[in-house]
Amino acid sequence: MTADDLVSLRRDLHRKPEPAWREFYTTARIVDELESRLGDNLDALHVGPEAIAGDHRMAVPEDAQLTHWYERARDAGVDPDVLERLEGGYTGAVAVLERGEGPTVGLRVDIDALPRRESDDPTHTPAAAGFRSDHEGAMHACGHDAHATIGVGVAERIAASDDFSGTLKVFFQPAEEVVGGGKSMAESEHVRDLDALLAVHIGLDHPTGEIVAGIDGFLAVSHLEAEFTGESAHAGGHPEQGRNAVQAMATAVQNLYGIPRHNDGKTRVNAGVVEGGSAANVIPDEARIVAEVRGETTDLMEYMKGRTRQVLRSAARMHDCEVDIETGAEAPSATSDEALVSIVADIASNTGGVERVLERDELGGSEDATFLMRAVQENGGHACYVGVGTDHPGGHHTATFDVDEDSIGHGIDVLAGSIEEISRQRS
Amino acid sequence: MTADDLVSLRRDLHRKPEPAWREFYTTARIVDELESRLGDNLDALHVGPEAIAGDHRMAVPEDAQLTHWYERARDAGVDPDVLERLEGGYTGAVAVLERGEGPTVGLRVDIDALPRRESDDPTHTPAAAGFRSDHEGAMHACGHDAHATIGVGVAERIAASDDFSGTLKVFFQPAEEVVGGGKSMAESEHVRDLDALLAVHIGLDHPTGEIVAGIDGFLAVSHLEAEFTGESAHAGGHPEQGRNAVQAMATAVQNLYGIPRHNDGKTRVNAGVVEGGSAANVIPDEARIVAEVRGETTDLMEYMKGRTRQVLRSAARMHDCEVDIETGAEAPSATSDEALVSIVADIASNTGGVERVLERDELGGSEDATFLMRAVQENGGHACYVGVGTDHPGGHHTATFDVDEDSIGHGIDVLAGSIEEISRQRS
Amino acid sequence: MTADDLVSLRRDLHRKPEPAWREFYTTARIVDELESRLGDNLDALHVGPEAIAGDHRMAVPEDAQLTHWYERARDAGVDPDVLERLEGGYTGAVAVLERGEGPTVGLRVDIDALPRRESDDPTHTPAAAGFRSDHEGAMHACGHDAHATIGVGVAERIAASDDFSGTLKVFFQPAEEVVGGGKSMAESEHVRDLDALLAVHIGLDHPTGEIVAGIDGFLAVSHLEAEFTGESAHAGGHPEQGRNAVQAMATAVQNLYGIPRHNDGKTRVNAGVVEGGSAANVIPDEARIVAEVRGETTDLMEYMKGRTRQVLRSAARMHDCEVDIETGAEAPSATSDEALVSIVADIASNTGGVERVLERDELGGSEDATFLMRAVQENGGHACYVGVGTDHPGGHHTATFDVDEDSIGHGIDVLAGSIEEISRQRS
Amino acid sequence: MTADDLVSLRRDLHRKPEPAWREFYTTARIVDELESRLGDNLDALHVGPEAIAGDHRMAVPEDAQLTHWYERARDAGVDPDVLERLEGGYTGAVAVLERGEGPTVGLRVDIDALPRRESDDPTHTPAAAGFRSDHEGAMHACGHDAHATIGVGVAERIAASDDFSGTLKVFFQPAEEVVGGGKSMAESEHVRDLDALLAVHIGLDHPTGEIVAGIDGFLAVSHLEAEFTGESAHAGGHPEQGRNAVQAMATAVQNLYGIPRHNDGKTRVNAGVVEGGSAANVIPDEARIVAEVRGETTDLMEYMKGRTRQVLRSAARMHDCEVDIETGAEAPSATSDEALVSIVADIASNTGGVERVLERDELGGSEDATFLMRAVQENGGHACYVGVGTDHPGGHHTATFDVDEDSIGHGIDVLAGSIEEISRQRS
Repeated sequence: MTADDLVSLRRDLHRKPEPAWREFYTTARIVDELESRLGDNLDALHVGPEAIAGDHRMAVPEDAQLTHWYERARDAGVDPDVLERLEGGYTGAVAVLERGEGPTVGLRVDIDALPRRESDDPTHTPAAAGFRSDHEGAMHACGHDAHATIGVGVAERIAASDDFSGTLKVFFQPAEEVVGGGKSMAESEHVRDLDALLAVHIGLDHPTGEIVAGIDGFLAVSHLEAEFTGESAHAGGHPEQGRNAVQAMATAVQNLYGIPRHNDGKTRVNAGVVEGGSAANVIPDEARIVAEVRGETTDLMEYMKGRTRQVLRSAARMHDCEVDIETGAEAPSATSDEALVSIVADIASNTGGVERVLERDELGGSEDATFLMRAVQENGGHACYVGVGTDHPGGHHTATFDVDEDSIGHGIDVLAGSIEEISRQRS
Repeated sequence: MTADDLVSLRRDLHRKPEPAWREFYTTARIVDELESRLGDNLDALHVGPEAIAGDHRMAVPEDAQLTHWYERARDAGVDPDVLERLEGGYTGAVAVLERGEGPTVGLRVDIDALPRRESDDPTHTPAAAGFRSDHEGAMHACGHDAHATIGVGVAERIAASDDFSGTLKVFFQPAEEVVGGGKSMAESEHVRDLDALLAVHIGLDHPTGEIVAGIDGFLAVSHLEAEFTGESAHAGGHPEQGRNAVQAMATAVQNLYGIPRHNDGKTRVNAGVVEGGSAANVIPDEARIVAEVRGETTDLMEYMKGRTRQVLRSAARMHDCEVDIETGAEAPSATSDEALVSIVADIASNTGGVERVLERDELGGSEDATFLMRAVQENGGHACYVGVGTDHPGGHHTATFDVDEDSIGHGIDVLAGSIEEISRQRS
Repeated sequence: MTADDLVSLRRDLHRKPEPAWREFYTTARIVDELESRLGDNLDALHVGPEAIAGDHRMAVPEDAQLTHWYERARDAGVDPDVLERLEGGYTGAVAVLERGEGPTVGLRVDIDALPRRESDDPTHTPAAAGFRSDHEGAMHACGHDAHATIGVGVAERIAASDDFSGTLKVFFQPAEEVVGGGKSMAESEHVRDLDALLAVHIGLDHPTGEIVAGIDGFLAVSHLEAEFTGESAHAGGHPEQGRNAVQAMATAVQNLYGIPRHNDGKTRVNAGVVEGGSAANVIPDEARIVAEVRGETTDLMEYMKGRTRQVLRSAARMHDCEVDIETGAEAPSATSDEALVSIVADIASNTGGVERVLERDELGGSEDATFLMRAVQENGGHACYVGVGTDHPGGHHTATFDVDEDSIGHGIDVLAGSIEEISRQRS
Repeated sequence: MTADDLVSLRRDLHRKPEPAWREFYTTARIVDELESRLGDNLDALHVGPEAIAGDHRMAVPEDAQLTHWYERARDAGVDPDVLERLEGGYTGAVAVLERGEGPTVGLRVDIDALPRRESDDPTHTPAAAGFRSDHEGAMHACGHDAHATIGVGVAERIAASDDFSGTLKVFFQPAEEVVGGGKSMAESEHVRDLDALLAVHIGLDHPTGEIVAGIDGFLAVSHLEAEFTGESAHAGGHPEQGRNAVQAMATAVQNLYGIPRHNDGKTRVNAGVVEGGSAANVIPDEARIVAEVRGETTDLMEYMKGRTRQVLRSAARMHDCEVDIETGAEAPSATSDEALVSIVADIASNTGGVERVLERDELGGSEDATFLMRAVQENGGHACYVGVGTDHPGGHHTATFDVDEDSIGHGIDVLAGSIEEISRQRS
């Protein structure tokens, strides 16, 4: 069972959602929580630039954005010493427990929120219970508030455990939603010596009481940003003098979604953010598409990326515009190792509150945990991505997403138990 | 010749461009200039809510916008008494000179800027000469800074004239670019007793030294704003659960520009501002188009409006979205009266620096001066829209638009001369 | 008044509509009619290759088409000697009357039909009165049956006239609808010595009893044909292996209609015929667009042509296809000379049955009579395009188009009278 | 080994490809071949209306088409008695061998060709070796000529076999390519008593020497035909009076390919044939799309069908057109039964020339053999769809598709061997 104080941590994080690389309040709050709960049991706590390989950060927002959120965190009264270390968007933390001989086991949780407005409908629990987002336009709509809480809970549990021998590292990873943080954590020194890595996600259409021991089917993903540049003109007086960037963009959007499906497996494309133009009476000279493509394999992702470039370029030419295409964050696919999957499945089957255990399931989305999983596997270790069911009223990434807080306890129980079992088998 | 001090007024206004209904600095600056130049010669000066019929304002921006620009004007140090009267976006002014028996003549100039970035290229005179926009993202790209200066200059000239008998009213109109201010000025009490109205525009592809005595061919115009609402979903996990508002928007844009041309005359459509979506990995549930349609006649504008609605609604249905369409500002067409056109042509032919006079030309754009012109004509008065040529390096509404300041003097000379001649013929 | 026998000629031509370069029956019928009506009064009758400059024919259909219609004409029992001379699609005729000293005057009428199905609704007069098209899928939907009849009628009238001195040439021009025949007639030797040329069109939204003395506003026109080539693939098994020519074509169509309107005047674009693909389960590897563009001036037509090419090429690239673009027939714009316009207006005003005479009107369409008009004007002669009103229930080019046969008489009266007056003024 | 005479049968069928429901020559040729090879060993031969349930035919072409191909077969000199029985498009045959006690086993082969032109490149074997299609515009581009040949070969082999006891029925099915014949054969009386059914397809990207014992992954498929109706107008004179069916069609095509991918499995859409309009200068009043949608399950196919209807209807509304949507042929998905798969795999492993046996593979396309498979399975029998590898230079449905004739022998050996083994196990 989750102690009430963990629920209050989750709700506090929920109330202060921070998008990628702006997890200033979140990181500071996690640091504070770990220090107060674990005290001397915490052997090391790497924060910000010490937790990640800063050069490998992807999709970092503009300085103005960073400053805005930094000041907001400062105004919320977090520890200024911690905050200062995060300046410039170096967020995240790695907590280390050293418990003698034994394997080095990692647990990775992600901590960022989404740039979307949260529902204020009274049937939406966070709204009704008073922990709806304070940050209008940002929301924990994918459960990372619960993930961070599970990370803290597992650290606390293992710190107090008699059944663990070895080293535990809990990775509180920033910027998962923009596929921006996984690589910088995978490239940090903390990952190199891991014998095993567990990662966790809540929900994913599995109800409370259900555990998926090993998730596969991560789609490889790539972000692209296209800037169309044309020429403005007076829309009434001389439409023929314009080179219409919005027409180019609209042509591109129509044809992006029309890229042929591929027989080798899943492909995806989304023009997730678009904008263009300045005034009703001016032929638009600028437009922008922030898009992502995915594939069941890296090859399929590359197929989508190649076709996307071709569509963007041809749409620009069609309307006599230029287009500048920048490739953003990317993540590979990965698979869960059977050795860990069977451990998690066993533990889950004997965990209170867990009513059903699935050996395997497909994610059908992307995750930059794959960077860490691949890094561990390439070093000869094992990795496993665990699903913790939770009743969620709205879908992931929608305004009414919420978690059943009971599932936080399930997550802590299954993960801590699995970590103990790994230690037992490897020691 | 334009006195240097008028050039410095124009440059000051150029440096502080303010978009529609946010002309706080601009109005206060004009008031200050009129008071210091005309002093007791100014019989009345109606400011803000006293200058316009506030209920008839169209396309007023959100409060946050108004506040932002209001504070900016305050910080720039304008007269707080004047500023206070403009609060809430009641901008503009009407200056009145009473000079005994004779006709009541109006001169209408517009004063607002455009929401676009000004060029910082060293070949762009305002950049080179140090009066480029201080307000990044806003720009006097249509010469309204010169118009306001001409208004002040004409008032000053007539105040000092021995050849004018009657009443002169100079209308400093806000919000022309969004077709938002003309109606509120036309509905004010100040327009009712006008016997003649002159309006003026600089440039319009006519070079310095050229005057167009009477401009016609105003396109009727209507603004529309469409909000598409769909349903978000995880773009990797469940694209089929989304109802994609950006796909609907792109389909609409493609088909808006494809509305059939009409044999009865000019038609226009422009999707001037578009935006949609929240994140690369979320199927967009919201998108927006700010569009305008125009027609050589009101019927043609209505044809375009009807087809536009049909396109917007069908595009929404196609992608299972809803669309909310709001009609914004509108302006009718109008024509210049021959009686005034011939006066202006005569005066222009005898004005120093004027090398060529065109009796008539077509605007090919829209203008909400048509509201004032029609109001005067319906009361039995005459109206005329005068073009003052100026060499402009970039086209209207583009980042490198600028005026040849010599033409400000031409405008003052021709307009003041014409006002005197009207007085002479009618007295 | 039109003799009944001319009505029966018109109805016979209506019943046997023949599209461009396939006017085998039509030409033979006209030849027969001229010979039987004029007999020895006919000084020369140039047929087929002697009437036109064969090398300058444009938009000639495939041999199979020519053969099909040739055989159909043969089966209808036309004079085999005449028919033989038309073989290979050399249709049309020029009738010459030499009446002593005086100007050489030309009258040009066109004779081809459209490839569209005629209405069989009982309210459609040709259907009710039994002279609906025998050639299913072809129709005289633009009144060229009446034009040919007027040509015969004027020749007969002038042959019998005491008021004409000089030479009359009546040009029965093929292939107007595809803008294919005008140039070949303009390049023939028969046009070189013309002092004056009249051309005629019936209808054009003018009612019976109305004459337009001089029509202007011919849009310059150009035909284009685009062949997209991609690669086929099994639509279920390997959609990704296809390069979809139909997607390219659809993208092109959407963007062709979206080419910006031009402030300098009328522009037009139409994707009049499209086709592509072979079977539901095959990714289409071929698609085709037959398009036309027009402009109020040749420059505007060239603007549209340039943008059209850009759209077609970019659409092909977008879907990894090739596109082959062929420019087809073209025609320039032209204007009617005032000298002839005033003659026609005078005569028309004194013609029985004519209730209203318009000096000038705009066509708003295209016409390859402009080739002949320009050729005459470049040689120092005058040209004039005359409109003869007729009540037409359906619009031009629609399935229910028909003419009021009274207007055939008006056309003959006004044109023959004008030709006599030209002779009178020039002799 | 394939006897040379079977190769000559295959080549003769290849030379006379006949599309769906027009397999007049093909059926008569098969009948002739069976009778001459099997003679008295043939216990029954059901032809045309006796072989299929005529009411359940789908996608039958127009009478003119049927007549054209019927006459072509007659001119080719086939047996007039057989031909007469096929009149009206009742093609196909069922051959029956009764060999005493034992199971009733079916073998289904399809016999129709595709409406596409065959390559005449000298590197294309049928062109080089003189058996390229005589029917310009039709082609055996999917190997059904080999399938028919295999059907004849298996019948001949079993007729001479000592290892088969029971009943064999060979189904020569028409109209597979249009998903039109499977249902009519499944609904015939001949299918009801089958204990086992084998179906076969050659190629499918497997090389010569490879056998796939059991193919699954049939996509459910549905054909749709949309007719858009607008209103024509003169494209130069009055574009605004048209209601453009080609614009509606192009909008539909663009959005059909943009229907969101579905996370539950494969989906497909193809606008395989499109056409519209009548002439370059007429706004098109008619346009047509022949489309198909597919899904990995029937639910996914229904999802695509629902979205397709919505796109078609909205595209029509957008351009003020009507659209008439007709659903054509459909086929469900199906799976191969393990009991038969293992028999085929065993036999194949011991067949000369077979170098590799795959237990299972996915088709990734559709097949109306699924109607027969499901009918047998619903009656308690088993079904299995067997793949016979063949080196094919061009992909299925492309102009250079061809089979390696050695694989015809492999197919006969594996299928006849499997039929004998089924008899052995069930007797």
